[in-house]
This record gives sequence, C-alpha cells and structure tokens, in this order.
Amino acid sequence: MSGLIRTRPSPDRVLPRADFQLRPVPSGFAPQEQEYQQALLLVAALAGLGLGLSLIFIAVYLIRFCCCRPPEPPGAKSPPPGGGCVTWSCIAALLVGCAGIGIGFYGNSETSDGVSQLSSALLHANHTLSAIDHLVLETVERLGEAVRTELTSLEEVLAQRTELVAAARGARRQAEAVTQQLQGLAFWRGVPLSPLQVAEDVSFVEEYRWLAYVLLLLLELLVCLFTLLGLAKQSKWLVIVMAVMSLLVLVLSWGSMGLEAATAVGLSDFCSSPDTYILNLTEEETGLDSDILNYYFLCNQAVSNPFQQRLTLSQRALANIHSQLQGLEREAVPQFPDAQKPLLSLEETLNVTEGNFHQLVALLHCRGLHKDYGAALRGLCEDALEGLLLLLLFSLLSAGALATALCSLPRAWALFPPSDDYDDTDDDDPFNPQESKRFVQWQSSI
Amino acid sequence: MSGLIRTRPSPDRVLPRADFQLRPVPSGFAPQEQEYQQALLLVAALAGLGLGLSLIFIAVYLIRFCCCRPPEPPGAKSPPPGGGCVTWSCIAALLVGCAGIGIGFYGNSETSDGVSQLSSALLHANHTLSAIDHLVLETVERLGEAVRTELTSLEEVLAQRTELVAAARGARRQAEAVTQQLQGLAFWRGVPLSPLQVAEDVSFVEEYRWLAYVLLLLLELLVCLFTLLGLAKQSKWLVIVMAVMSLLVLVLSWGSMGLEAATAVGLSDFCSSPDTYILNLTEEETGLDSDILNYYFLCNQAVSNPFQQRLTLSQRALANIHSQLQGLEREAVPQFPDAQKPLLSLEETLNVTEGNFHQLVALLHCRGLHKDYGAALRGLCEDALEGLLLLLLFSLLSAGALATALCSLPRAWALFPPSDDYDDTDDDDPFNPQESKRFVQWQSSI
Repeated sequence: MSGLIRTRPSPDRVLPRADFQLRPVPSGFAPQEQEYQQALLLVAALAGLGLGLSLIFIAVYLIRFCCCRPPEPPGAKSPPPGGGCVTWSCIAALLVGCAGIGIGFYGNSETSDGVSQLSSALLHANHTLSAIDHLVLETVERLGEAVRTELTSLEEVLAQRTELVAAARGARRQAEAVTQQLQGLAFWRGVPLSPLQVAEDVSFVEEYRWLAYVLLLLLELLVCLFTLLGLAKQSKWLVIVMAVMSLLVLVLSWGSMGLEAATAVGLSDFCSSPDTYILNLTEEETGLDSDILNYYFLCNQAVSNPFQQRLTLSQRALANIHSQLQGLEREAVPQFPDAQKPLLSLEETLNVTEGNFHQLVALLHCRGLHKDYGAALRGLCEDALEGLLLLLLFSLLSAGALATALCSLPRAWALFPPSDDYDDTDDDDPFNPQESKRFVQWQSSI
Repeated sequence: MSGLIRTRPSPDRVLPRADFQLRPVPSGFAPQEQEYQQALLLVAALAGLGLGLSLIFIAVYLIRFCCCRPPEPPGAKSPPPGGGCVTWSCIAALLVGCAGIGIGFYGNSETSDGVSQLSSALLHANHTLSAIDHLVLETVERLGEAVRTELTSLEEVLAQRTELVAAARGARRQAEAVTQQLQGLAFWRGVPLSPLQVAEDVSFVEEYRWLAYVLLLLLELLVCLFTLLGLAKQSKWLVIVMAVMSLLVLVLSWGSMGLEAATAVGLSDFCSSPDTYILNLTEEETGLDSDILNYYFLCNQAVSNPFQQRLTLSQRALANIHSQLQGLEREAVPQFPDAQKPLLSLEETLNVTEGNFHQLVALLHCRGLHKDYGAALRGLCEDALEGLLLLLLFSLLSAGALATALCSLPRAWALFPPSDDYDDTDDDDPFNPQESKRFVQWQSSI
C-alpha cells in the first residue's frame, strides 16, 4: 500500500536545495537539521523576493506612467488611445484572479480532505491500540478472578484425591502462564505517544489553516468583484480603496505562496520515502522494539509477527487448560458432584478467553494498523499535497492578476471623466433605460 | 461505521413517491419491484416535463417577440429601448451557466471519487476473501503432505513399540481434524458472486459516465464562451449557430437532470437503510448462511463469530498435536534416532501451520471486511451522492441559463447593426486602437 506512494516520483525532487550560504543540501527529509530548515526557509524567501520584485515593478511602472506622460494637447477631450486595452486587460486580470479563487477553494477543500483522512486514520489506529490494551486487561482480570475463586474452590472440593488436585494445580499454572503471555501483548501500554493527541493537534491546526484560507479567498473575491464594480460604475473612490486592498491582498498572496512552497517542498521530501523517517521518529518517541514497528509499518511476508511465539504459547496453554478441565470433569464429577459448578464456570471462562484471544490475534495482526498507516500517508501525500499544489497555483495566479490589476487600475482611473462633471448617483445603473440606450448606441457604433 | 450512514436523514425522504397511476409508493429501496421502478421513471419524467415546458415558454416568447413587435417608426436608426438590458441579461445568464459548469466539474469529480472508493473497497474485500481461500488451501495441503510423508515414515520407524505408534496415530487423527475444520473456514469458495467482477463492472460504467459528463461540460463551456464571443463581436452567424447549439445542450441538460434526479432518489432510498437490502441481496446471490453475513455486515458485540467453534477446535487440535509430538520426541528419539528427522520436520510444519492459523483468525475477523463495507457505503452514500446532487445543481443552473440565453439571444441579435453595413473582419477586435477609442467614447459617455 505504502509501496505505491514510496515509488511515485516526487514533483519537487528536481529542485536543488541550498542553505543560506547557497551550498547544496541533500534533499532527504530531515526537519531537525539546521541546513534542511535553512533550505526550506530559502524556498519561502524566494516568495519574498518575488513580492519585492513585483512591488518594484509596479512602482516603476506607475511612476513612469504618472511622471513621464506626454503632455496632453490643450482642449483635447478624448483620453489617449489604448485606454480600452488598459481597461480590458484589467478586467481580464481580475477574471483570471476569480478563476484562481475557484482553484483556491478546490485546493483548500482537497487539503482539508487529506488532513481529515490523516486524522481519521490516526483515530482509528488509536482505537485499535486501546482495544488491544483493553482486551488484554479484561482477559487477564477474568482469568485471574477464575483462578482465585473457581479453581481454589475446586481444589478444596477435590482435596481428598491428590492426583485430581495436581490436575487442578496444572490448570492453575497454565492459566498463570496465559496471563503472563497475554500481558506481554499489550505493547502500547505506557507508551508516551498518543495517536489521539496527534490527531487532535493536527485537526486543531488544520481548522485554523482552513479558516485562514477561506477568509483570504473571500477577501480576494470581494476585492475582484468590487474592483469590477468600480470599473463598471467608474467610481473613483471605490477604485482607489480597491487598489489599496489589492496591494494588501498581493502581499498576503505572496506570503501564503512562500508558506505553501516551503510546505510543499518539505512534504514532497517526506513523501518520497516516508517509511524510514516515520519508523525512526516512532522508535524515538515510543521506545518500542524495532521489530514490532517494522512489522506494523512494513507488513509484508519478509517481516515475521513479533507476537507469534507469545500467541502460540498462550494458545497451547489454553488448549492444555481445556484438556485438563475435560479430564477433571470425566474423573471428578461422578465422585464429587460439588465440583461440577466451578468446573462449568471455568469452562465458560475458558470459552470467553478463547473468543477474546481470537479477537486479540485479529487486532494484533498488522493488516489493520498498516491499512491505517497507508490511509494516513495517502491523505497526506496524495490529497493534501495535491491541494497544496493547487493552493500554490491559486497564489501564483492571484499574485499575477493583482499585480496586473494594480498596474492597470490607475491608467483606467485616469480615463474616467473628471469627477466635477461626473454625477455619482444611481443614474449610471446599466439597467436603467437611459443607460441602456447609451450602451446600445455604443454597441451599434462598433 | 455504517451506523453513521444509517442514521443520517436522507434529503430525498420528503419527496412523495408515486407510480404511473399516481398511487403513493412506499419509499423503501426495492429496485426489483415494478411500482418502485415506475416511481423512479416518474421522477425522471418530471425532467421531460420541465424540458417541454421550457421549450413551450421559449417558443411562445420568441413568437411573441417576432410577430407582435410594435411597428418600427420609419427612419428610426436606433434600436428599441431595453436592448442593453437584454444583452446584459444574456451575458449574466451565460456567466451563471459558466459557474454551473464549475459546479458540474466539481460534482463529476466527487462522484468519480465516491465510485472509485466503492470499487477500491470491493477490490480490497476480494483480496481478503481470496487470501482466506488461498491460506486455507495452502495450510490444508501442507498438513496433508506432512501426514502422508513424515507421519507415515515415523509410524514405520516406531512400528516395534505399539504405544508410540498409537501416539503417532493420535497426531494423525488430530491433523485430519484440523484439516477438516480448516476446510470449513474457506466460506467464500464456490460462491458465484465475485467482488472483483462487481468492481470491474462498476469502474467500467463509471468511466463512461465520467467521460460523458466531461464532454457535456466542455460542450456547454464552448457554447457559453462562443456565445459571449459572438455577442462581443456582434457576429450574427456565430450567434445563430450558438443558439442552435444552446437548444441541443438545453435538451441534453434536461435529459441528464432526469437521469440524475432518478439516480439521486434511488441512491438516497438505498442509503437510508442499506444494511437490510445488501444483506438480503448478498444472501440471495451467494447462498451463504445469514449468521456469516450478519457477522460481517453488522460486526458488533451482539453478533458472535460464526467461525468461533471451528477456530477453537482447530486450535485445540493443533495444541494436542504439539504435545503428542513433544511426547514422542521425549520417548522415541533416544531409542529410535531415525525418528528425529521426521519429528523435526513435523514440528516445523506445525509451527508454520500455527502461524497461518493466526493469519487466518485475523483475516476471518469481521473488522477488515466490515471496514471495507463501511468504506464502500461512505463512497456511495457520501461522496457519490454529494457529487450527484452537485451535478443536479449544474443541470438546473445550465437549463435555466440556457433557456434565458435562448430567449435573449434573438433580441440581442435584433439589436446588431444590419449585416450589409456590418463588416465582419478583424476590425472589430476590441484590442485594436480604433476599437478601443470607440470603447472609451462609450465609457466616457456613460
């Protein structure tokens, strides 16, 4: 399952990594190493560079537009040629921005899907691990109780015949052996790492990330729509306010692009060979034996079940208890009718223990936990990474669109009629008949 | 897991169902019953009614527009007032159509996700079922081989001492008992229903459904964009061709809406209580015992493992073989050194069999198969149903948008300048300077 993910070529493997001194850095995922952190920060800093360059470009363009304009011939009423092109390019840029917003919403929901798949896999794994603990505890307690009460009263009843007491003592020894073997199976007891806690932390962070993106997307949508409205209604104050807002959203877009790029590079490094990293991390955090972790993380024919011996020993001990109880029933009950009640109760306990044992075998098998691991990796490395790349595309599109819009807005604004003979009332509603007539006149004039 | 889905109120439960005589039909999912099929067909027929009504509305509107136009005052060059409103409403309708197309793409990919989740769950279940079969077959063959060769040669070696031969015979009986019990565990052998086949059929149908929707969506996108281009360039022939295409897409949209509505109603009926239906269907198709099916489909504390007894008996028999082999090793090997080789080989076989037995216990436990069932249901009843409802929304939006566009297009067309003084060359490119100047004149005239 994870093999599929492991062998998939990562889209970011072609990017060279470098630290702050621009020395090349190996591209394996190692978030604790300083030079890897520097490489990621450098990727994020590229977005800062992009922001700086685009701000400089916009400033130079606008200064050139404001100061180096050819002097207007006196009395010329009509604006310079090329104004329509400016307005149309501004509208086209805003439409591209809107398409980018659509992509952003999709990417945000994909990322959220992937992360929720990760946290639900973690919750399921936690459920399995705590079910193992609980089942072991319950079975051990039930067996201990049976040994303390029924087996003791059986020995008291059979006290007259030593060979029967010896058989009962044999059953007691076997039950104690089962108890001991079972207690070794609750391998997650006392481990300081809780998948539940990890899932809750991941969901908490994801909730705020999702909300922040939705707010950014809505802000950009509002800016695009109100800028279009301002252009259509030729409202100067709306265009000015929206130009300022566009600048704000431009900075936010580049900022989010930096975060996304660094996260995407880190995530794709992680996803190119997740097993080794996760295995080492879990070994450090939990202190579990590497054969147990290998069994669950790899789960193939090459790795044998580390609980096999304990399971086989418990199984044999349970079968021995059964044959000893059957022998006692055959030998003792005709002579000591009082022995029947504790014997029946012991057999009932044995049946329940065997049922629990089968459940335990099923829970301990690597299939279930490995499937959760595969689902978590798929959520992170397929859905979340795809969503992240879509969000990166959104940031790129919106940065480009907003920079273009910021360059064109003042030029379009300059084409608006002067505000003294411009009446900013509802008169300019395109849907009132007078307006329509003017539109139609324009249309038929083309 | 499936409890979540079962208790969720279905959005379509409020719709009354009726057959062709309009008698109410109970809303339980029963696709084999004629009156339920009639109810679904009636839901689909509602879309046909909608198509008919919208065609009649468009026809009446256009006839009224063509024939009952107030006579144009002679010499009037300017078109009637309200023309701009007509063009704008046509553009707005096409933009709504484009938004609908976006929703359609999203819904199509959601549906596809849900169905692929269903088929991957089916593939996983098939893998589990065939692994059980394979494991049982392998273990039975290995045990039979050991009984035929090693146990026979052991009996020959020990022929001089009858009590040792009796112990070997006992081990043979136990091995035969294990073989018999294990064969009863391969419950899916000879069952005529193959989840693999179902998954392949589902994927096959889904592939064509997905492709058909993508083609429909692309067709509608092209129609919207070319209609907008036709309006912008005032190209009469393009507008006429696109009006005809719009009519075609309108028919297709209503048709797909009928299919989607019937499927959504059927699917939501199915999803409101899937367990009973699936249980009955699987029982009919496979002929398996209902306690086995209940165990896998419900998988809760109330349903006991139907293989519990077989597993316990096999386990006890395996433990007995082990103790008999150990006894033989203790008693026979000092006297008959030739017995050591077959005994070691038998113990090796026993160890492998015990390992296989634990794997079999894990595979037979309901957790794995029930998780696949839950994943299949979630794919169908969450993702696929959600995608279907989004596709329904797309069809509604596009039907409304296309009907509005079809009503407005001829009116907008009538506003175009007569074709004799209309030069259909590249001159009317909005980005050439002359054109821009005219646009700017229009803009400043507002």
